[in-house]
Amino acid sequence: MHTADLPALDPYQQDCPTRRILDRIGDRWTVLIVGALEGESRRFSELLRRVDGISQKMLTQTLRGMERDGLVTRTAYLEIPPRVEYALTASGRSLLEPLKALERWSIDHYTEVDAARAEYDARVATG
Amino acid sequence: MHTADLPALDPYQQDCPTRRILDRIGDRWTVLIVGALEGESRRFSELLRRVDGISQKMLTQTLRGMERDGLVTRTAYLEIPPRVEYALTASGRSLLEPLKALERWSIDHYTEVDAARAEYDARVATG
Repeated sequence: MHTADLPALDPYQQDCPTRRILDRIGDRWTVLIVGALEGESRRFSELLRRVDGISQKMLTQTLRGMERDGLVTRTAYLEIPPRVEYALTASGRSLLEPLKALERWSIDHYTEVDAARAEYDARVATG
Repeated sequence: MHTADLPALDPYQQDCPTRRILDRIGDRWTVLIVGALEGESRRFSELLRRVDGISQKMLTQTLRGMERDGLVTRTAYLEIPPRVEYALTASGRSLLEPLKALERWSIDHYTEVDAARAEYDARVATG
């Protein structure tokens, strides 16, 4: 699928459906969950531990949205106790590279951003 | 600046400062504003037109946050009427590539995501 086929898609237009997609993939939790599923499927409880600070409710909600968007599969195994595993689809895997680039940027530029903030706050404080 | 220098940074940890950065750069409006400033500075009113659907308040707020994070500069020209221009800093320009990859993904995968949603919704509706 290439843009040439869809000349009307433009996330700068309010009613363009790509906006909603941008919201999903730019979401902090989506970024972290996609990374956590790289290379292996994981149980709900594993994701809950890995993505420190996410609530059970938010993880459920984000995974459901990602499943709906075709980014992850949810497989329930009929065992006792029941086991549910999440894995990236091909579409979800194609997000690994752009999202890892974001994660990488936030790590590489952390000190720079932090210094900029301190400088801005000092400037605002002194008027 | 490379990660090797900062072994403690891990966005999977709740209290890691890179989390806040991830929130900023993954934000839908930041993605669109960075793209709109590619290659040229722009006035507030130009950005307001370009980023269809953003409110004046949200644009002000997002630009202020981006200025604080060192991603854009704000230059006020003492003219009548007063002119204020926004431009990307070197740090902001370094975001162009990862954010354009996100924008690109949302355009390239739009039909796929949309089909997945329709299928999911049909599946849920029929139980």
